[in-house]
Order: sequence, then C-alpha cells, then structure tokens
Amino acid sequence: MIIDAPTATAARAARFWAAALGATAGPFAPAPQFTSLHHAIPGLVTAVQAVDDDPRIHLDFETDDVAAETARLIALGAQEVSQWQECRVLSLRQLEVAGQRAGVVGPQSARAGRGQEPLEKIV
Amino acid sequence: MIIDAPTATAARAARFWAAALGATAGPFAPAPQFTSLHHAIPGLVTAVQAVDDDPRIHLDFETDDVAAETARLIALGAQEVSQWQECRVLSLRQLEVAGQRAGVVGPQSARAGRGQEPLEKIV
Repeated sequence: MIIDAPTATAARAARFWAAALGATAGPFAPAPQFTSLHHAIPGLVTAVQAVDDDPRIHLDFETDDVAAETARLIALGAQEVSQWQECRVLSLRQLEVAGQRAGVVGPQSARAGRGQEPLEKIV
Repeated sequence: MIIDAPTATAARAARFWAAALGATAGPFAPAPQFTSLHHAIPGLVTAVQAVDDDPRIHLDFETDDVAAETARLIALGAQEVSQWQECRVLSLRQLEVAGQRAGVVGPQSARAGRGQEPLEKIV
C-alpha cells in the first residue's frame, strides 16, 4: 500500500502516518522518494511516496510477470497510463473511478537483499 | 481499508476490485452502501463504499474509544471534518495532503455477530 503525498509535504505526511499507524519510518535507499513505514500493517508493505501528483493511497500488485499482471488488470477494466522503471501505473478512469490508481511491480525480494527490510507482500 | 467510489459506479468498482484482489464481493447488510471484499487482504477488513464524494482509498482506525482515538489523530495533525453515526471522518488538509482521509470507527465485532464476516481488524 503506497501513500502518495506531494513532494513538499511528503515528510510531514510520513511522520503523521508513522505515528498514526504505530510504524517506524525509514528511508528506502533504492528509491529515495519512498519512506518505508515498517510494520505499519502486518503482511503489507506500506510506504509514503513523494509525488508530483495528487495525494492518494494506491495499491501495488507484486508479481513475477509484470506484463501478464498488467494485461489481467486491463482486461478487468483498468487502463495503463504510464510506466516507471519496471513498474506500470494503472488508472480506473474507464470504470469512472478516475481518482483510484493501481500499480504493478516486479518481485521486491531483490531490493530486500540490498539491506532493506524484507518486503513481505505488496497488494 | 475502504475503497470509496461514486455511487453511480460503485458496483463496477466493486467488481473490479474483487476480481483484481481475488476477493469475494458480498453485501454488508447493516450499511448497504458497503460491499465487503472478503479475504481481499489478510487481516485487513476491505470494502468498497458508495459515496457522494471523490473516489479514494482511505483507512479506518478501529478502536474501543472513538473519542480518544480521534483526539490522538488530531494531535498528530489530522482535522475532523464530519461525523457519521458513531464514526468520525478526518482530513489531512492541515498537513497539506488534503486528498487523504482517515476514519475512526468503533469495534466491528458487534456487526460480525449479526451474521456478517468476522471483521478481524480495520486499520
């Protein structure tokens, strides 16, 4: 679960959510726009992301096959709007819930191996 | 975790999210604007809510003491914007992440006792 906040206020948002959820906030070295919220929600990777976009909460789908998972979600009604590195960004505009977003990301365990927390699961 | 969708498209949104998350969608009798997404995310009550408001995903904090939990979150920077039955609706406008919302709700186990799924946890 990714909590998107405008870059100017992302640090403030991270402090709020860490305290609100009883989590420990920490940097995520491979992608400095993320602040990990360790142990915020059991079994669910949670982070605040600084964005130049609207603030929102979105879900990322972790998968071994980004293309196939993206195709599955598009078949269900999502719409691909952009790509970022290996990740795809999906909008639910076609479902007329345009404010909702979803992402599709590759396995996170490689990042965990670079000294980060184990990323148990991204939904 | 509550997925808010405009009333006109909430059913469509519920079908999308149920399929996307591998969940079973079902009515939530005590409050028909909710569609439960059973087993969407382990340990986290997940539902689509039909709203006359912007689509968004928001988190509800379940607590035995709604007033105290609301006060705790306000002290952290949230702002109370409305009440609905026993629930409080909080905005993060003061943190300049106005698009993000949070709710504070009472224990959900009483509802579970009325023939609904056990509501394990709302975060």
